[in-house]
Amino acid sequence: MALKTREDYLAALKQMRPNIYKFGELITDITTHPATRRTVESHAMCYDASNDPDLEKMYTTTSSFTGEKIHRWNSMMQEEGELISNMKLKRQNYRRSGTCTGGVCVGWNAQNVMWAVTHEIDAKCGTNYQERLKKWILHAEKNGLTVAGALTDAKGDRSLKPSQQADPDTNLHITQVREDGIVIRGVKAMICSTAASNEIFLLPGSIYGEADKDFALSCVVPRDIEGLTIVEATRPSDQRDLNESDLNETPNTGITQGWLLFKDVFVPNERVFMCKEFEFTSKVIGFFTANYRACIGACVAGQGDVMIGASMLMARANGLSAKVFMNKLVDMSINNQITFGLGAGALAVGSKHPSGSWFADPLTAHTNKVMVATLPYEVKRLTQEIGGGIVETGCMPSARDLENPEYGHMLRQALKAGACSGEARFKAARLAEWLTVGGGIPGCMHGGGSPDGAKLVVRFTTPMEEYAEYARKVMNIEEKIEEPAKPAKK
Amino acid sequence: MALKTREDYLAALKQMRPNIYKFGELITDITTHPATRRTVESHAMCYDASNDPDLEKMYTTTSSFTGEKIHRWNSMMQEEGELISNMKLKRQNYRRSGTCTGGVCVGWNAQNVMWAVTHEIDAKCGTNYQERLKKWILHAEKNGLTVAGALTDAKGDRSLKPSQQADPDTNLHITQVREDGIVIRGVKAMICSTAASNEIFLLPGSIYGEADKDFALSCVVPRDIEGLTIVEATRPSDQRDLNESDLNETPNTGITQGWLLFKDVFVPNERVFMCKEFEFTSKVIGFFTANYRACIGACVAGQGDVMIGASMLMARANGLSAKVFMNKLVDMSINNQITFGLGAGALAVGSKHPSGSWFADPLTAHTNKVMVATLPYEVKRLTQEIGGGIVETGCMPSARDLENPEYGHMLRQALKAGACSGEARFKAARLAEWLTVGGGIPGCMHGGGSPDGAKLVVRFTTPMEEYAEYARKVMNIEEKIEEPAKPAKK
Amino acid sequence: MALKTREDYLAALKQMRPNIYKFGELITDITTHPATRRTVESHAMCYDASNDPDLEKMYTTTSSFTGEKIHRWNSMMQEEGELISNMKLKRQNYRRSGTCTGGVCVGWNAQNVMWAVTHEIDAKCGTNYQERLKKWILHAEKNGLTVAGALTDAKGDRSLKPSQQADPDTNLHITQVREDGIVIRGVKAMICSTAASNEIFLLPGSIYGEADKDFALSCVVPRDIEGLTIVEATRPSDQRDLNESDLNETPNTGITQGWLLFKDVFVPNERVFMCKEFEFTSKVIGFFTANYRACIGACVAGQGDVMIGASMLMARANGLSAKVFMNKLVDMSINNQITFGLGAGALAVGSKHPSGSWFADPLTAHTNKVMVATLPYEVKRLTQEIGGGIVETGCMPSARDLENPEYGHMLRQALKAGACSGEARFKAARLAEWLTVGGGIPGCMHGGGSPDGAKLVVRFTTPMEEYAEYARKVMNIEEKIEEPAKPAKK
Amino acid sequence: MALKTREDYLAALKQMRPNIYKFGELITDITTHPATRRTVESHAMCYDASNDPDLEKMYTTTSSFTGEKIHRWNSMMQEEGELISNMKLKRQNYRRSGTCTGGVCVGWNAQNVMWAVTHEIDAKCGTNYQERLKKWILHAEKNGLTVAGALTDAKGDRSLKPSQQADPDTNLHITQVREDGIVIRGVKAMICSTAASNEIFLLPGSIYGEADKDFALSCVVPRDIEGLTIVEATRPSDQRDLNESDLNETPNTGITQGWLLFKDVFVPNERVFMCKEFEFTSKVIGFFTANYRACIGACVAGQGDVMIGASMLMARANGLSAKVFMNKLVDMSINNQITFGLGAGALAVGSKHPSGSWFADPLTAHTNKVMVATLPYEVKRLTQEIGGGIVETGCMPSARDLENPEYGHMLRQALKAGACSGEARFKAARLAEWLTVGGGIPGCMHGGGSPDGAKLVVRFTTPMEEYAEYARKVMNIEEKIEEPAKPAKK
Repeated sequence: MALKTREDYLAALKQMRPNIYKFGELITDITTHPATRRTVESHAMCYDASNDPDLEKMYTTTSSFTGEKIHRWNSMMQEEGELISNMKLKRQNYRRSGTCTGGVCVGWNAQNVMWAVTHEIDAKCGTNYQERLKKWILHAEKNGLTVAGALTDAKGDRSLKPSQQADPDTNLHITQVREDGIVIRGVKAMICSTAASNEIFLLPGSIYGEADKDFALSCVVPRDIEGLTIVEATRPSDQRDLNESDLNETPNTGITQGWLLFKDVFVPNERVFMCKEFEFTSKVIGFFTANYRACIGACVAGQGDVMIGASMLMARANGLSAKVFMNKLVDMSINNQITFGLGAGALAVGSKHPSGSWFADPLTAHTNKVMVATLPYEVKRLTQEIGGGIVETGCMPSARDLENPEYGHMLRQALKAGACSGEARFKAARLAEWLTVGGGIPGCMHGGGSPDGAKLVVRFTTPMEEYAEYARKVMNIEEKIEEPAKPAKK
Repeated sequence: MALKTREDYLAALKQMRPNIYKFGELITDITTHPATRRTVESHAMCYDASNDPDLEKMYTTTSSFTGEKIHRWNSMMQEEGELISNMKLKRQNYRRSGTCTGGVCVGWNAQNVMWAVTHEIDAKCGTNYQERLKKWILHAEKNGLTVAGALTDAKGDRSLKPSQQADPDTNLHITQVREDGIVIRGVKAMICSTAASNEIFLLPGSIYGEADKDFALSCVVPRDIEGLTIVEATRPSDQRDLNESDLNETPNTGITQGWLLFKDVFVPNERVFMCKEFEFTSKVIGFFTANYRACIGACVAGQGDVMIGASMLMARANGLSAKVFMNKLVDMSINNQITFGLGAGALAVGSKHPSGSWFADPLTAHTNKVMVATLPYEVKRLTQEIGGGIVETGCMPSARDLENPEYGHMLRQALKAGACSGEARFKAARLAEWLTVGGGIPGCMHGGGSPDGAKLVVRFTTPMEEYAEYARKVMNIEEKIEEPAKPAKK
Repeated sequence: MALKTREDYLAALKQMRPNIYKFGELITDITTHPATRRTVESHAMCYDASNDPDLEKMYTTTSSFTGEKIHRWNSMMQEEGELISNMKLKRQNYRRSGTCTGGVCVGWNAQNVMWAVTHEIDAKCGTNYQERLKKWILHAEKNGLTVAGALTDAKGDRSLKPSQQADPDTNLHITQVREDGIVIRGVKAMICSTAASNEIFLLPGSIYGEADKDFALSCVVPRDIEGLTIVEATRPSDQRDLNESDLNETPNTGITQGWLLFKDVFVPNERVFMCKEFEFTSKVIGFFTANYRACIGACVAGQGDVMIGASMLMARANGLSAKVFMNKLVDMSINNQITFGLGAGALAVGSKHPSGSWFADPLTAHTNKVMVATLPYEVKRLTQEIGGGIVETGCMPSARDLENPEYGHMLRQALKAGACSGEARFKAARLAEWLTVGGGIPGCMHGGGSPDGAKLVVRFTTPMEEYAEYARKVMNIEEKIEEPAKPAKK
Repeated sequence: MALKTREDYLAALKQMRPNIYKFGELITDITTHPATRRTVESHAMCYDASNDPDLEKMYTTTSSFTGEKIHRWNSMMQEEGELISNMKLKRQNYRRSGTCTGGVCVGWNAQNVMWAVTHEIDAKCGTNYQERLKKWILHAEKNGLTVAGALTDAKGDRSLKPSQQADPDTNLHITQVREDGIVIRGVKAMICSTAASNEIFLLPGSIYGEADKDFALSCVVPRDIEGLTIVEATRPSDQRDLNESDLNETPNTGITQGWLLFKDVFVPNERVFMCKEFEFTSKVIGFFTANYRACIGACVAGQGDVMIGASMLMARANGLSAKVFMNKLVDMSINNQITFGLGAGALAVGSKHPSGSWFADPLTAHTNKVMVATLPYEVKRLTQEIGGGIVETGCMPSARDLENPEYGHMLRQALKAGACSGEARFKAARLAEWLTVGGGIPGCMHGGGSPDGAKLVVRFTTPMEEYAEYARKVMNIEEKIEEPAKPAKK
């Protein structure tokens, strides 16, 4: 039976080798340490949902390989509808956890992308990558794995290619091709949810030419593989996660973004899906970003939904009706629905790859990325506007102050405003802060690449010259009006 | 054979009774009069496209009733894909004509909506409206009709219901139910493309209660039916359409929006699809606006595409490379793609009505309406920014001045700038003006209803309380935080 | 006595030589012809105001030369407060006329700018331009002149300098320097309000180097000087100005923008203030644009005020309370006040030139220009949103239709909605259209130069490197972080 | 001698009674404790500047009472220019400290406001408040005091007045009027920079009627007065301030916002400037907010300047030229200059109170507040866009990780990108984070009141009906068009 429970999931995580650090210290049990248990909880809730009659339809599906019921995040996505189901799962996950659960997102996308890319590599190069991948997918389905995905390299000097970097380890690369596998080395940066994942799906972080072919690699590794050290990045206010108090200042859910230090890690062949075939890196990036940037519309929508909710709680906790802010709440809902609907639209006008994988329309998907990097900022601004000063800059005393025997009572009194206790108002404010300037921010600006990159795609997928022709014809201008021959001096 | 040609179409229009006025005068031949021939041309181009090997796939389809090849705008829309095809046709129409072709849009939408509504009325009231409608659809398919649609009534005092108006004719209503049909009277306002249409599909303009049941009516009438007088509305700069000159100042294509004065018009039963069943008017409005506001994203995208093109022509006509404005052109493309993609997304997350009709998701569709009423204004602003002062306020002398024997030559010289003649620059500037502050503006603010109405739908389709609950759970706030009992005094 | 009346003003205009054309025909009496009488009326209202006890404080002042009471638009502006008075006059003018009165604006600005520039030229070149200018100012004060100003040349190919143009007449230039004056030739384009002016103040249209020194010229000419032909440009819907009807479709006020064709015009020395001193053209442009772009904030604010008013009329004419739209009206007011206040701020942080003239701070003034090219578009959008469909695209029948004996009555009935007649609603809608997509649009995008030009000034007046240093110091980063040595490849 | 040095200032602070808590613990030396020394440092830099030949003109002025040279923040502001000097000092302070220095801002504003209000109270009530105030001002000037100001009360239930609150201590109020002074009790919330201040100027937090007259109070108290406990609020990421590391993660400057718990504090009469004269609370609020909301434009501009700088550092630290992002940097500069220039404009069109104090124009000042609550969010968004992922969510390991002996070296290597060390890039990223989602955010949304409050002022200071009249006259509409008599049903 492919479906796993929260308990199965936690048990598997506990068995792994400790290789995750934060604040300079090794975390021995990531399921209980305050720096990592929150993202684990976010993912555990997905297993709960898979076994919940109300949610299972959203969180499970049938394997196209085995016909068995599986966790949806292990499935193939070969129809538009299957990707829209991906979006719905994501939005629901955000609503339930308030933040990003990358372990049921990036690996899933990677698997679908590499299904298409291995199809192409195999056809051109006579390799058997797709067969390897299929075996791994069956393994993932069977074990109901949570799989993080890693594209972004530490990059180094952005004006230089990977092979030109002073330190070659700035980007993950193949140092050795052995008969039984490859050895890889380098740094992947800002990788989401590895702490909560069983495995990590590695993809090339950019489009490479021949000089950089050592950087063209794709494979899957267990999170605790020998030679891999993970250092969790900081996030705004994340030291609050460590505070001990009866009055929690952050949710039980959360997000992590790790820096992955690979020191000569060996990956056996059956887990390698690209090995120096640099000509196909553009396909990886193209397919990955198209679907990622379509679906991420659901993430920011889902977090925006929680911001609407947090704003309503704050209005009421402040003693006002949420209706007072209805105009703003509606504007928030509109912003949320734009990224969700535009993502769905990118899928609806997408197309099917010969391998069976479905990919979003690039122009629409990258347009959505620009929105994803813009609209949530307005939703956050409105959350802060509705919430008041204690939300805007977290401007309340700490839980410890509220518990102080001398003056804590006066503070709790002073915090009480609407139809709830001062403590409930405190927590609602902390939630709004966490969502807008705190640890819950998912990284919609640069996650999956920058909006400037998206604009480049928009530029090159918009048929500009064709539009100039339409204009000329609409106005019956018989003359051609062409680009000036000489360089424009402006 | 269902497919018609431009010639068939024009011949049919010429046979109709003259009943269209503009500037106080009756137009005897709408296919040649400068006030109406432009919209006729826009629609004639659709017949061209149906018979053009490159475009026929977009403009034709197969009848689900007869299996015959038909003009797409006469077809049923029962799958998401069929509505996305509707969007693609619309975008292409705008690219080719620069403006709205309502005769291949509103009637089509109306037919699909009434297919669902008659299904419901028949089931509840034992009527046979759907059978009547089917017969009419077969007639429309067979004759390849262009069919305008009319919802908006003149309305009168917006604070009163139709039955409360001082003048009952402010809204179209049934004055008599006869055995063989109904008699209708009143005014429909701002109805697009009736001049270019064979028939007009009438729908109720709002949601009515029992007191207003006489206003609950739907039927189809020939454009030249006895008792119907059409007065074409003015549009910015439309008197230029009347100017005679070798150097045309407006495109050959165009748009009309007529005021329809019904004076006791008799409609036979076989063309009546709703007669006082007021309880179903909410369905008409709901279904119609959902699909309309999804699909209209394609219209503003298509017109925006032409604005990109016109901007490129202007840049070059001014002596500059279009690349100088690439940032702005990309922003325009993003704005266009948002409304297109969001419309497609509304369809993708839509649903199938028991009758077979497909309807867009209301929340997403109405979100799109708000964008449609916002983003094109920025695209226009950018068109004016790129085009320069002669675009912004049409700030050039007229064609007659350019032809003036005394000073015309000096003006034409002064207008020459880039790699084209002064006349070509003149025409490119007129196009940009026509698209942004001239006769080509389609009415994306209020067409199909106002954005404030759309926001109301957003408000009521957003599950606000559910979001408050998500927020409460994410933060583990055990207390309920409820609306204040007493009215908030702000 | 320096103050003139409306009658004095009109009499003076009537005496001038007819040299203004529109639609290919010479206008014999510009005070009565429908194409020009509207801008004349707008300016005549300034003379009314100068003689109106309620308004005279705003419209008149005391000559700094003679101590006499003069029309404010002939005065020197040597303190910030005098420029803020300029702004207040402009805003009031827009409120009263609905549009631009360039004859009490551009010449006034030009006079103040040239006061400073002649001061500099005289000091450097030993000329006596300032003395000439002073004499002319005394003449203008004494005769209460309305003085248009002309900078913008027809320009031609934007990638070439004036002297490189195929046709040298594309830009106004000196063809001959005689002992008693200069001869000029070429085209100034889009010059506001010349039809309503007694004289025209000519300034160089750009910054010129030595190769273009023939284009470096400044002088004042009577509007009807020999050799000058003016062709009025078209504006959206301006043919409606020509319609005869009892029910007027445009205001009695208005704007014109003429193309000025100079064919070997002789200007006597006493009216010449710059003759080939090209090194000072940058000063002209710098001073002129700084003050212009500060003060223009008042213009768009004043027109925006009328849009608020027109929106309120429309709401009520539609049968609704204006309060229904209070959020939008407040947003409109905010947008108006931004450009007004920011203009005033640019003056408040401006500085005094050694000549006595006061000039706005360039960074703030050009920032304002960007706002002036942006915010009014949103105000217009809101005007169209509040006004409804008959405002958006002028979508009503014409006055002639309303007067048609057959169906006019039905239309007037159908147009009646709120607490006023259908005709009053018609006129309110026409006003809203005229302000937003019609003839009343002043040209805030490109008037006084484009926003891209303003951004260039912002770029070069913002001390970017200084800001990088502040950032480094705030964070105690001891290392320098410098621009990469090699060209960035992005 | 009125001018004080950093040493004088620090010495004075050290002598005060410890009464400030954070994280539940009493801070014994606020000049050295990491939670408070940063704001002390920000203020100490003002004393440095007063004694710095390059900056003293900005930071000092001459007492209008004594003619002595004094710190500018103790001076009277009686001319527009003196308030613009206030703005320039604020902008410079932000550039030097990166954040808010409320101790040289709010008390200063309060003193000027109360100068006018005491003038009015004295005139009406025969009190001698202004004389008392003058004595205190002389004391403040002489001792070069840093003076925080406190308006905002904890408020409690926003739908109830202070006297209706369940807990009367939610708002600061007078509990006893004694012959020699008053006793006050209650909570002021989110009060900036008290930790760095010698004294605190108290003002009423809202407009009160007679029922709430006990809340109408103004006085000045030493920061360490008996009965006053201050609890510093948390801020995003402020626990990082406590981290010990060679590699600092936050600037040495900073901001605090305290909750002030007054438990029966006695204030002697000579420091009381309002005692229950509730009718004048509207004046306090009106004057205070007008000047505050004008001047705050300088604060957000100054912080925005540092964001421009931080963005340039990040671009370069990432290996790119800052020029790559010039469009965005220019947009940031425009946003900054809008709030600065609009604030200056509000002052420029302000007016002089009979007492001598100068106050900003309310309509313009409150318009600026709306901008201050909007534009910085876009500047922050751009900072995050330029900076990349390590800026957006602080997504880098901590300083401790960089110092970890096992993997720290690899991280520092991976962080190195452009022409600086990995550590310098780390610090630049931390700065950008601190400015945008970290502890440096000043609270421009709700500081000095909410934007919705500002919109109310805009609403009531905009002469809407007058604008409707202008519109009617422009279009020559003779009929009145009035509000509908009956309530609009929308």
